[in-house]
Amino acid sequence: MSSPALDVALAYYKAWSNKNLDEALSYFADDFVSRTPEGRMDAAAYRPFLGGFLEILKKADLVAAFGDENTALMYYDAETLPVPYSPVGEWFRVENGKIVESRIVFDNFTLQGAGAIAKVS
Amino acid sequence: MSSPALDVALAYYKAWSNKNLDEALSYFADDFVSRTPEGRMDAAAYRPFLGGFLEILKKADLVAAFGDENTALMYYDAETLPVPYSPVGEWFRVENGKIVESRIVFDNFTLQGAGAIAKVS
Repeated sequence: MSSPALDVALAYYKAWSNKNLDEALSYFADDFVSRTPEGRMDAAAYRPFLGGFLEILKKADLVAAFGDENTALMYYDAETLPVPYSPVGEWFRVENGKIVESRIVFDNFTLQGAGAIAKVS
Repeated sequence: MSSPALDVALAYYKAWSNKNLDEALSYFADDFVSRTPEGRMDAAAYRPFLGGFLEILKKADLVAAFGDENTALMYYDAETLPVPYSPVGEWFRVENGKIVESRIVFDNFTLQGAGAIAKVS
């Protein structure tokens, strides 16, 4: 049940959940792209997106994590300053030890209702 | 890599994605409970929640699905009448062939912004 992709995704998860933004972003491939509730983002766009989240993050608790050779999937509960319970689903595709693609889903309604993040345009 | 829990979760997924609400709900244990963006729900509360979603659902595309003995995790893209792209993360705990617990995350902001579902109180 070993999963090289999950190993990378968990290293990324561990980095950001410890507020190590630079280390977290080091797991992204140069051509990284993510599909988020706020639109598609490359690595440059993801930095302020993730950085803003880390500013309000209190902790993250992993509910489940699975993976195979090239993909990984996680579900975790984020506790943020404005929102105690904000679950997140995140999918990854990994090539050569780097995350080349991700998809993330969280409830923007709760976070935006709490004034936690900027409104999407 | 066989997963009894994922088999049940995928049968549930197949049922609702084919708009078979009764069959879908038949996979829930009597003491089923779910943690959703609209609060905790038992099976009785989940029926109108899922039923309302099926009324706007055009199709669902599975992005990833994993499982082990007792848990399963999915990520899928829902295409709804008001919102073409609405990803969902869903986690399941299964006992004796029935779903006893689930957690689901989707972006209420997008759906509510589109007027797709009732505002949470």
